[in-house]
Amino acid sequence: MGVNMTHYDVICIGTGGAGNTAAFRLASAGKKVLICDYKQFGGTCAISGCDPKKVMITAAEFADFNRRLCSKNIADERLKLSWADMMANKRQFTTSHSEKLIYKYNKTGIDYVEGKASFTGEDSLKVGDKEYTFDQALIATGSKPLTLPFDGFKYVCDNECFLDLDSLPERVLFIGGGYISVEFANIANAFGAETTIVQIDDRLVPSFDEDIVEVMTESLVESGVKIMTGARVYCIEKNSDAYVVTIETASGKVSVDVDMVVHGAGRVANLDGLNVDAARVEAARGGITVNDYLQTTNPKIYAAGDCTATKGYLLSPVAFMEGYIAASNILDGNSKKPDYTNTGTVMFNVPSLSAVGYTESMAKAAGLDYRVNFQRTDHWFTSFRVIEKFSAYKVLIEKESNKILGAHMIGPHSEDIINMFVIAMNKGLTTGDMKKMIYAYPTATSDVIHMLD
Amino acid sequence: MGVNMTHYDVICIGTGGAGNTAAFRLASAGKKVLICDYKQFGGTCAISGCDPKKVMITAAEFADFNRRLCSKNIADERLKLSWADMMANKRQFTTSHSEKLIYKYNKTGIDYVEGKASFTGEDSLKVGDKEYTFDQALIATGSKPLTLPFDGFKYVCDNECFLDLDSLPERVLFIGGGYISVEFANIANAFGAETTIVQIDDRLVPSFDEDIVEVMTESLVESGVKIMTGARVYCIEKNSDAYVVTIETASGKVSVDVDMVVHGAGRVANLDGLNVDAARVEAARGGITVNDYLQTTNPKIYAAGDCTATKGYLLSPVAFMEGYIAASNILDGNSKKPDYTNTGTVMFNVPSLSAVGYTESMAKAAGLDYRVNFQRTDHWFTSFRVIEKFSAYKVLIEKESNKILGAHMIGPHSEDIINMFVIAMNKGLTTGDMKKMIYAYPTATSDVIHMLD
Repeated sequence: MGVNMTHYDVICIGTGGAGNTAAFRLASAGKKVLICDYKQFGGTCAISGCDPKKVMITAAEFADFNRRLCSKNIADERLKLSWADMMANKRQFTTSHSEKLIYKYNKTGIDYVEGKASFTGEDSLKVGDKEYTFDQALIATGSKPLTLPFDGFKYVCDNECFLDLDSLPERVLFIGGGYISVEFANIANAFGAETTIVQIDDRLVPSFDEDIVEVMTESLVESGVKIMTGARVYCIEKNSDAYVVTIETASGKVSVDVDMVVHGAGRVANLDGLNVDAARVEAARGGITVNDYLQTTNPKIYAAGDCTATKGYLLSPVAFMEGYIAASNILDGNSKKPDYTNTGTVMFNVPSLSAVGYTESMAKAAGLDYRVNFQRTDHWFTSFRVIEKFSAYKVLIEKESNKILGAHMIGPHSEDIINMFVIAMNKGLTTGDMKKMIYAYPTATSDVIHMLD
Repeated sequence: MGVNMTHYDVICIGTGGAGNTAAFRLASAGKKVLICDYKQFGGTCAISGCDPKKVMITAAEFADFNRRLCSKNIADERLKLSWADMMANKRQFTTSHSEKLIYKYNKTGIDYVEGKASFTGEDSLKVGDKEYTFDQALIATGSKPLTLPFDGFKYVCDNECFLDLDSLPERVLFIGGGYISVEFANIANAFGAETTIVQIDDRLVPSFDEDIVEVMTESLVESGVKIMTGARVYCIEKNSDAYVVTIETASGKVSVDVDMVVHGAGRVANLDGLNVDAARVEAARGGITVNDYLQTTNPKIYAAGDCTATKGYLLSPVAFMEGYIAASNILDGNSKKPDYTNTGTVMFNVPSLSAVGYTESMAKAAGLDYRVNFQRTDHWFTSFRVIEKFSAYKVLIEKESNKILGAHMIGPHSEDIINMFVIAMNKGLTTGDMKKMIYAYPTATSDVIHMLD
C-alpha cells in the first residue's frame, strides 16, 4: 500500500438506492466502509428521478382534479399553479434527503467522499487525487441518459435539468415515448406549457400492455399533450428565439419551434470515467456483467442497481434489493440471488398506469393457459365519483389454478391496487382467496374483487 | 293459500347489499324470488350512505388539496365549489344505481315490488295490500337513525336528508361524533358551511385507535370544523331565523343558532312495521336474533346485514357477505358461517382513517404479547409530497410469530394501505413476508415496508 493510500474493507461507488442499502448493511455488520459520489448524495431516484418527479406530479394531479370537477361545473376556476413554489417544495425534499444521508453516514461510521471514482487496479481506485485500496468494492453508479445520434443533441436537456428548472419554458418537446417523457409531459402540461412528445414507435411505452396504454394516450390527448408517434428527431437547431426541432415522420420532415427539448428516450449504465478495465471488470451494452450473485468478473467487486446488466428493471426497489443482496454476498460469500418475479411497477401518468407480471403478449408467447379480464371502468364507482373517464384494467388468470399471472391497469389509485396484486402473485393466492376477504369499502383497492370475477 | 296470495320460494325484504346479494344468488340457483323495499331501490349504502357520501367527499378532497397547495403558495385561488352540481353528480349515480338494479331483476327473473313489508304469519307477509306466502324469507331491512330523547328531535335531519339537499345551509351542526358526523362535517365544511360537531364522549369515534383519532381531530380543527366533546344536545327550538340548539357541557349549558341539525349519533336495526312477532322472529336491542348460520328463531326465515344482531360491523361488505351466506344456507341447509375477523374499515375523513384487527386496548385486554409501531408520518414522502400534515400509523405485531394483529392509520391513501393489511392478516403473513416483496414505488401502499420494521 502506498503512503498516501487509505484502505477500506469495502468501498461503495454511488449513493443511490443500491449503494446506500449495501453501505448501511455492511457498516452494521462491522465493516469499515467508504462511500463516494460525484453528484449530490442520494442517487437518481431521490435527487433527480422518482421522488422529485412525483413531488412535481402532485401539481398535475391537482390540475387534473380541477379539470374533472370543472367538466361537471362543480369547480369553475381556471387554476394558476406556481412552478417556482412547487420547485421550492421539491428542493426542500431533495436537499434534506442529502443532509439526512450524511447525518446517517456520520452516525453509522461510514466515511464518505465527494468526487468521481476511477479504478486504478484490481483492488484500488482514485476519487479525485486521493487513492484508496479495498478488500471488496460495490459498483452502484446507476444510469444516465443515452446519447442520441442526431445533430444538435447538445441542446437537449435531461432529467436532472428538467427537474431543477427555476422556471418552466412555454413550449417543451420531449424526445421518446417512455415513462420519463410521459411523466414529465404531465408535469409540463399541468403548469401550462405547450407540450409535445415525439415517439419513434407506433405507440407510447411499448413495454406496457397495449390496451391500457391506449386509454392512457387518450388521457394525455384530452389534457392537451400533443403526441407524435412513428416520428424521430432528425436534428435540432438553435436560433435567437427558439430551438427548431426537425422531426422525421411517415409523411416527411416537419419542423417545430420550442423553448426546450427534454431527453426521455432511454437510459444506459453510467460507467463514465470509472475505468472498469483497470479493475478487470467486464461491461457489455446493458451494463456491468454480473453472475447470479451480483459478482463482477473481478471476484472482489460486486455491482448492483441500474448500472448492472441484470434482468431487473431500472427501478428503485430493484436497486434496493440488489444492494441488499450484494452486501449479503460480500459479507457471507455468494449465497443470495436476486428474484425479479412479480415486481410491481407504476408510471405516474395522471391517472397512474401500473403493472405486475405477464403482459398478454408474454403469456401468449409462453404458451400459458389463461383467461383475460379486460374492461374500461369509467362507470365503476371509483372512477365515477371523481369523474375519471380514463380507467381500465386487464388481469390474466391461469385457468387451471385460478392464480393471477399478470395485472395491468390505469385509473385512480392504480398504483395501490397493483400492490395488492404484488402480494397475491408473490404468495400464489387464487382469485377465490382474494375475493373472500372483507376489504375496506368503498375504496379503489376493494375493486380487485370485481377484477377477478 | 288464499285466492289473492302469491307464493314464492324465497322473499327478500330489502334491496340493499344483503338483500340483493341473496336474491341474485337464489335466483341463479333456480329459486322463484320476490324482493321488496319501501324506499328507493338500492339500500342505504348505495342510495343514502357510503357511496353518495363518498361522491360528495370528492369535493372535500379537492378543497383540502387546494388548501394544502395554497399553504406553500403553489396554488393561490380561493375555491368556490357548487353544491348543486355535486349533488347532480351524486343523483346521477344513485338514480342509475336503482335503474340498473331493476334491469338486473328483470334480466334474472326476480320479481320486485315497492312497499312496506309486514309479516302476517310464519310463512306469509303483506306488501301494501297484497299478501304473499313463502317457503323461506330473508330479512335484510338494514338500519335507521336511533331516536334521541330530547325536545325538538323532530327538527333533526338524517343521512337521507343531508345527502339529498338541494342547497347547503350556512350553519350546520352534527349530533354525535361517530363516522357519519365526521364524514358529513368534512363535506359541509368543504362547501363553506360553518360546521360544528357535538360529541357526548371525550373524543371523536371512540371505537378507533386513540392516537390516530387525535391526528384526525387536529385535521378537522385545522380545516375549520368546530368540535365540542363531552357535550350533549339538551334541546332544539326553532325560531324564525334559526334552530336554537342548547348543549349541555361540563361548564354548563350553551345555545347556538344554526340552520340545520344533522343526526350522526348512531343507528339501529330498522324493523319498522315489519311485525316480526307475527312471524315468531325474535329481535333484541341490537337487531334480529340469529344463530351462527344467520337463521332467525323462525327456521324458515334468515336475516342478514345491518338489521341483525351479529358481531359484524354495520358495513356494506359485511352485509354482502352475510347476504351471500344466508342465501347459501337457504339453498343448502345450514352449512356456512360468517367470519368477521380481519374486516377492513375506513372512515372518510379527509385524509381517510382506516383500521383492521386489534386496537391496542383490545390487544392489551386479550393479554397478547405484541410490539407497537406508532409514528406520525408527515415527513414521509407519501405525505410530504402532497403537503399532508395529518398522517400517522400504528401497527401491532405479535412478538413471537411476527404476524400482524392490527393496523390503524390516517393519511393519503390509508384506505388502500389498510387493504394490504387485510390480505396480510387474513393469510397470516409475517412482517418478513410483507417486506420481501417488490412493490410499485413511490406509492402509499409501498410504505407498508417501513411500518413493519
